[in-house]
Amino acid sequence: MKKLINTAQSVVDEALSGMAAAHPSLRVHERVVYRASGPRAGKVGLVSGGGSGHEPLHAGFVGYGMLDAACPGEVFTSPVPDQIIEATRAVDGGAGVLHIVKNYTGDVLNFEMAAELCDDVEVASVLVDDDVAVEDSLYTAGRRGTGATLFVEKIAGALAEQGAPLAEVARVAAEVDERSRSFGIALTSCTTPAAGKPTFDLPEGEVELGIGIHGEPGRRRAAMASAHELATVAMEAIHGDLPLAGDLLVMVNGMGGTPLMELYVTFAEVEAFVRGKGARVTRSLVGNYVTSLDMQGFSVTVCRLDDELTRLWDAPVDTPGLRWGR
Amino acid sequence: MKKLINTAQSVVDEALSGMAAAHPSLRVHERVVYRASGPRAGKVGLVSGGGSGHEPLHAGFVGYGMLDAACPGEVFTSPVPDQIIEATRAVDGGAGVLHIVKNYTGDVLNFEMAAELCDDVEVASVLVDDDVAVEDSLYTAGRRGTGATLFVEKIAGALAEQGAPLAEVARVAAEVDERSRSFGIALTSCTTPAAGKPTFDLPEGEVELGIGIHGEPGRRRAAMASAHELATVAMEAIHGDLPLAGDLLVMVNGMGGTPLMELYVTFAEVEAFVRGKGARVTRSLVGNYVTSLDMQGFSVTVCRLDDELTRLWDAPVDTPGLRWGR
Repeated sequence: MKKLINTAQSVVDEALSGMAAAHPSLRVHERVVYRASGPRAGKVGLVSGGGSGHEPLHAGFVGYGMLDAACPGEVFTSPVPDQIIEATRAVDGGAGVLHIVKNYTGDVLNFEMAAELCDDVEVASVLVDDDVAVEDSLYTAGRRGTGATLFVEKIAGALAEQGAPLAEVARVAAEVDERSRSFGIALTSCTTPAAGKPTFDLPEGEVELGIGIHGEPGRRRAAMASAHELATVAMEAIHGDLPLAGDLLVMVNGMGGTPLMELYVTFAEVEAFVRGKGARVTRSLVGNYVTSLDMQGFSVTVCRLDDELTRLWDAPVDTPGLRWGR
Repeated sequence: MKKLINTAQSVVDEALSGMAAAHPSLRVHERVVYRASGPRAGKVGLVSGGGSGHEPLHAGFVGYGMLDAACPGEVFTSPVPDQIIEATRAVDGGAGVLHIVKNYTGDVLNFEMAAELCDDVEVASVLVDDDVAVEDSLYTAGRRGTGATLFVEKIAGALAEQGAPLAEVARVAAEVDERSRSFGIALTSCTTPAAGKPTFDLPEGEVELGIGIHGEPGRRRAAMASAHELATVAMEAIHGDLPLAGDLLVMVNGMGGTPLMELYVTFAEVEAFVRGKGARVTRSLVGNYVTSLDMQGFSVTVCRLDDELTRLWDAPVDTPGLRWGR
């Protein structure tokens, strides 16, 4: 294993130092990443968080039009309740706070505990569980939360920025999750700094279909295949769960180690599949957004848009990881 | 080798199809990527290009405030003169065209030939040669052009957008190159789709110091070391060539396979080094911008800013790969 780190123990704090140094729009304090501008009175605050190693998720999505704070845990490890409590109190502008929680047992427990302990702040919560690959998994009861987290953070963030009340922001956040589905495929394992060796073995000629973002097993192993075939497997799984129809927001997401050139090849296949079903990709993202350290592979996330969601997706956003149109 | 492709022969065209499908702001025609909005009368046109496999460079930097067209070659192979001629004629808005050329023998020859054959268009050219690692290399007479290409494209692009004449745009482009230096370190080789095996062998415990963006050899092999030590090697090489002083634009660039978390750790080290020399990082980029397929590793590029260059760096840009403040 060769990693650009100093020690496995210090990697998260040092990465956060680097983020703070690179982005004056962010402030890092005791393992919480905030907007440097602080909370805005009357605006619903958005807090997310989860294990590190998925960058730019979540800390890279703190900023105008998206999150108010992110709580990074250790690599692939939930943040602790104290971080979440600190973040929740700090970003409350008097209109309450929405917790955006990926459906992993540790995250769910720790966000719930933090919400209970923040009895001075009105807290609502949305659970993201978009991954159609498996029903339960190593770290999850129910579906895992993956790529749709970005969609929820972006769309709920836009609505909060426009001054919507907490109940409305929470309602739309849950609607985005309900309208979104994901499926991931790994070509290689990832390697955590602490373990120093691949999380799982994946032979040269095989891929893992339905991989989780921590390297949890998916549906099955299969022989390595073309971009066309792999994109088809992912899209059939999504289409089988929520039929593709109408206007779609589609993300082809790299797991961290796959070149952008290959993600564009994959996007071309995904877009052709969507057209073949009579639907349309009207908004898209191609790149590394919800990663698994150095894993090679991709995930596809699809959200069925309506006019309101399209308008909120298009609203200005200004974060290190996603930025347009301010 | 596992790659998300269909065939090695079709990968470039399919990736371009994916780009066009993902970005309605782009138009792809016969292996040239244009702004869909077409040339603007009276604006200097900017054309760049080079081998594919470095995405988002160059096609991802086509758009408002940056390039007017990009000419992608095959993977790690120069574009042919016909592409460059086509692009040059198409983007000329009557004010002439600037060619931005990385210093590789094939690129230099093909851009020169294209410029000569475009005798109906006023063409100026800037050669980017920022890599301090080696004086000559496998594919280069003189220094290689790497990360500073992005700086030249961004800053010259802003100036062109503001209506500056060709001579002025070319002068500032050359000034950015003169003020910029880069150094790269590889932790692993890259693998081209056509070869199907790593371009070079790099044992588990070693790194290549001064790597080129095609996997060309650097200065020397060394034992794998900490992010602090590797960042120090890169920064000493840059500082020894152009002393760090004043306000700096600094990019910590991933080679394609390195997680963003590790790039932020590296940026923290680079920023501390700069402070230690009494200089300041006033602008920065951290991410995958000038890549080498799936290579793990990083490069640092530093540009000594002045007020004019800072203002041009801050000017609005709206491309798939770089976007802010429009």
